[in-house]
Amino acid sequence: MGNSFRIESSTDGSLARAGVIETAHGAIETPAFIPVGTKATVKAVTPEALGTLRTQAVLANTYHLYLQPGPELLESAGGLGKFMGWHGPTMTDSGGFQVFSLGAAFGKRLSKFGNRKEESEKIEESLPLAKVDDEGVTFRSHRDGSEHRFTPERSIEIQHAIGADIIFAFDECPSPETDHDYQREAMERTHRWALRSLARHKELGEGSAGDQLLFGIVQGGRFEDLRRESAKAIGEMGFDGFGIGGTFLKEDMGNAVRWVNELLPKDKPRHLLGIGEPLDVLIAIENGCDTFDCVAPTRAGRTGTIYTGEGKINIGNAKFEKDFSALEVGCDCYTCKNFTRAYLHHLFDAHEMLAATLASIHNLRFIVRLVENAREAIVRGEFKKFSEEFLSRYIKI
Amino acid sequence: MGNSFRIESSTDGSLARAGVIETAHGAIETPAFIPVGTKATVKAVTPEALGTLRTQAVLANTYHLYLQPGPELLESAGGLGKFMGWHGPTMTDSGGFQVFSLGAAFGKRLSKFGNRKEESEKIEESLPLAKVDDEGVTFRSHRDGSEHRFTPERSIEIQHAIGADIIFAFDECPSPETDHDYQREAMERTHRWALRSLARHKELGEGSAGDQLLFGIVQGGRFEDLRRESAKAIGEMGFDGFGIGGTFLKEDMGNAVRWVNELLPKDKPRHLLGIGEPLDVLIAIENGCDTFDCVAPTRAGRTGTIYTGEGKINIGNAKFEKDFSALEVGCDCYTCKNFTRAYLHHLFDAHEMLAATLASIHNLRFIVRLVENAREAIVRGEFKKFSEEFLSRYIKI
Repeated sequence: MGNSFRIESSTDGSLARAGVIETAHGAIETPAFIPVGTKATVKAVTPEALGTLRTQAVLANTYHLYLQPGPELLESAGGLGKFMGWHGPTMTDSGGFQVFSLGAAFGKRLSKFGNRKEESEKIEESLPLAKVDDEGVTFRSHRDGSEHRFTPERSIEIQHAIGADIIFAFDECPSPETDHDYQREAMERTHRWALRSLARHKELGEGSAGDQLLFGIVQGGRFEDLRRESAKAIGEMGFDGFGIGGTFLKEDMGNAVRWVNELLPKDKPRHLLGIGEPLDVLIAIENGCDTFDCVAPTRAGRTGTIYTGEGKINIGNAKFEKDFSALEVGCDCYTCKNFTRAYLHHLFDAHEMLAATLASIHNLRFIVRLVENAREAIVRGEFKKFSEEFLSRYIKI
Repeated sequence: MGNSFRIESSTDGSLARAGVIETAHGAIETPAFIPVGTKATVKAVTPEALGTLRTQAVLANTYHLYLQPGPELLESAGGLGKFMGWHGPTMTDSGGFQVFSLGAAFGKRLSKFGNRKEESEKIEESLPLAKVDDEGVTFRSHRDGSEHRFTPERSIEIQHAIGADIIFAFDECPSPETDHDYQREAMERTHRWALRSLARHKELGEGSAGDQLLFGIVQGGRFEDLRRESAKAIGEMGFDGFGIGGTFLKEDMGNAVRWVNELLPKDKPRHLLGIGEPLDVLIAIENGCDTFDCVAPTRAGRTGTIYTGEGKINIGNAKFEKDFSALEVGCDCYTCKNFTRAYLHHLFDAHEMLAATLASIHNLRFIVRLVENAREAIVRGEFKKFSEEFLSRYIKI
């Protein structure tokens, strides 16, 4: 594994840095926001539109693709990127988070932040417990209840078949309410699984074309000692880069990320898994993350929640019915250059599919551009100023 | 009303012709297939994609836009084209067909061809009868049951507010099973309404910018004497062009269109309302129609029915699961150049929104290209040969 990352600029008094990750399908200028294409499609958005809004890479979910259409099909298709018509860099996560959040491992659903107790309880009642052991995780499909098993080796094999440029070691992802004892147990298991993931990756020739980058995942929940211990352990294993995984209480995210990034090797890229709200992204950049993926911009877009520099607006609100201004004045996206708030209001009111497409394009462009601008600010040595200015406007509403 | 149509080529032994309609938003080379954007959006397709597949114009439905978002809003927005981000020519129908098909006029639903008896009966039971009289039609909204009234004058006023380049006179559209006596009554009313539509159009200054073209609609059902009588009457009224309206039994369409087009003034364009299946389009061209609109390509696309030169295929069929060829080999559309049958099969299987978008783009391009090719064949004097060759392949499956 050669070094596929170079840092172009570090910054003033924070961990923020600007860099470039080289992959088999092109470079990713970091920091970069990576849209999620769960089932080999960024929902409601064509790859052509993704390119136009300057998306640099797409992340798909191993758990979902494993269940549908299956890794064999993706391998026959020539890999994820070719299958979905996206010619730039691709990533897959390890399936770890989804096994615990969508699958019924532990009989519990898990969200990125600890706030879905009621739903967890419902699932617990309706499905038998699945089982995590040192070998791997047995879980039930959220689609049909069928039983499946992931091990670190199996996750890597699946990700090799899917063929993304950047793949992740298999990890255990406990609930954010989990106590220190269990977080330690899960973290230590994640470290053993990381070594097994690495070993299987090397056996398989580091990807079918020898060019997949493998990132190890740091765990440890909200506990500083565990996060630091995990960063140190995973950091020494020889991965091409790192994922920061697990769930946190929302207010702990910045700390958890900083603890980790202070210890991870500086010359390798760091991906924060599943984070994508504008404020969270700025906190992640400030604390040394290079890339992040999240469904938030597209999920919000599909329900009519629109990102603007002054905060989010709900385009379904009656006050936008006759508002013939752009979703966000000055935005350079296809939606803002061609359509008005009144038109988007109408499309959502009429339940037209184009509503989701146009809103998703804007929200993705908003967050991609925010991160582009953050990068430029880092290069200029003005990231803190940039971040403060953005935050002073964004929280107004 | 000056003449906005010129014929470039007539053809060998049929009524087919190639021409150009000039509108305030550009020219339409005819014959042309016009995609339907019912509620000011061609479902699941961006205006940018419509342009890429060489759509020349879009037709929206007055009935739907009247109910949502309302003509006042469209007028404030600067008209239909500006509102929906489509910068080429636009059309609106008169609302006549929809009042009878979606509204509850006569307590009956109506489809373009006479084949929905069961549904008609259901509607008849569940809603009170609406009423057509010499003044206009009172109907109930299909959305909320609220009562509304269209007159010829009101239809024209609404269409002026919506602001499309080509608009239609208000007509009565009886069921295809209607007997000769009622068809005559409805046709004669349609003729009186045509004169009232023309008068209101002139009063309003032929469009807010004086540049809307008004087409009169020929009725008469499946009866040769009525169709010819209607063509003669409407043809003499001084419209900018003509719509051929009404419903037919499917096998009668070619005849009904020929009877009409043999009598309509040759120097004005003729639009066949609501027709768009590949075979029907070729019959319409052969019998002298210049433009046609239909939801069929996009509606079929949304359910996974894909047009190909060999006939339609259902992409959800298991045999396409591992088929890595294009939807249609040789097709120049965005979908066929970038994606495989296997990918579309997966998107439909996973209920992904992109499925509808990509399938609609292909189906629209298929029918737009079919008509482009028909036009070139007319210019070469080889339309009959072209049509026969297409039909010999298309009916194979």
